[in-house]
Amino acid sequence: MRENGLLIVLSGFSGSGKGTIMKELLSRYPEQYALSISATTRQPRAGEAEGREYFFKTKEEFLRMIEQDELLEYAQYVDNYYGTPKAYVREQLKARKNVILEIEIQGALKIREQFPETLLLFVTPPSAEILKDRLAGRGTETKEVIHSRLARAVEEADGCEVYDYLVVNDDLDACVEEVHHIILSERSRMARRLDTIEEIKNQLKQYVKGEEI
Amino acid sequence: MRENGLLIVLSGFSGSGKGTIMKELLSRYPEQYALSISATTRQPRAGEAEGREYFFKTKEEFLRMIEQDELLEYAQYVDNYYGTPKAYVREQLKARKNVILEIEIQGALKIREQFPETLLLFVTPPSAEILKDRLAGRGTETKEVIHSRLARAVEEADGCEVYDYLVVNDDLDACVEEVHHIILSERSRMARRLDTIEEIKNQLKQYVKGEEI
Repeated sequence: MRENGLLIVLSGFSGSGKGTIMKELLSRYPEQYALSISATTRQPRAGEAEGREYFFKTKEEFLRMIEQDELLEYAQYVDNYYGTPKAYVREQLKARKNVILEIEIQGALKIREQFPETLLLFVTPPSAEILKDRLAGRGTETKEVIHSRLARAVEEADGCEVYDYLVVNDDLDACVEEVHHIILSERSRMARRLDTIEEIKNQLKQYVKGEEI
Repeated sequence: MRENGLLIVLSGFSGSGKGTIMKELLSRYPEQYALSISATTRQPRAGEAEGREYFFKTKEEFLRMIEQDELLEYAQYVDNYYGTPKAYVREQLKARKNVILEIEIQGALKIREQFPETLLLFVTPPSAEILKDRLAGRGTETKEVIHSRLARAVEEADGCEVYDYLVVNDDLDACVEEVHHIILSERSRMARRLDTIEEIKNQLKQYVKGEEI
């Protein structure tokens, strides 16, 4: 029963704590998780290392990766491209690491089209009111800023109903453990263990035939 | 977010340890689980109490329960009927208990037809060989007995591919915790939390309209 890791997408509202949940999983269970490292055409900033924060690419290299279908998903922000290289993800999954991608819903759906077994988790604060309070910060933001953040939150949740799980982040510590256990549990889903049960059933039938008692 | 408990079916090979897993869940987490109590037409044995081991019914009462659709599923063994009363299960679910039924695949599928949200778990030893050794007992059984137990095992697994989870019982303690976490995780499935996310989204839209900032 040597199994690959799972590919996991963590999406959620800005202010839902999804980034912290991801960091905590990596720090609590470093043997079990790997972050996906993105490729980007933007310039490295001070302290950023190739293959640690990002794989830094020229625009030509990036366009070639797109052309050769080497990216799970990609998007363009302002003048730069960002994407998820397949090769790195595949390598980590084979090393039995669960690979977590923190991306938005549109990218997640593209990935699921290619890899239907991808696990999609959406993180939300316990209520819209709590989210509003977090987005409002410490009362230093203008009404316009808060309004635009709320409008963005509505967009961020658009289509999240197709996700597999809704994780309510009330208490960070409990939430990290919940996400970890969701991922552990998913490994036992029948759809992921059909080989195991098939093998047991075939072996049992051999025994019944009396060939190997 | 007041949620009902989940209805859970635990099936598996004889010798898989499913009965022990169920008892352990009830003893470790008595607030979270309830066993389903079956109705039966057989006579109470010494020490059995009405409403504890079984709800004892006359054949006429039982047939009336069938007729009035008061049973989730039922079966006849030899001269007696056994069945799962809906009323008791419903009561426990409303009290937020997860109700566990230990039944075979055919009964499980009937229940899922009526309650599609029922969670189906199938328990197996790690391998056919280990199962065979358990069924063979301490070497005191005849070849014929072992053969008939193995043949029964093949039947017990027939159709289990439609179950939600395959739980491999290698180490009992770890397995009980795995089942517990599968059930906890299932509560966070998006399909069970559509009301929650809908409410948050609607509230956010109200905020964006500026009605309640």
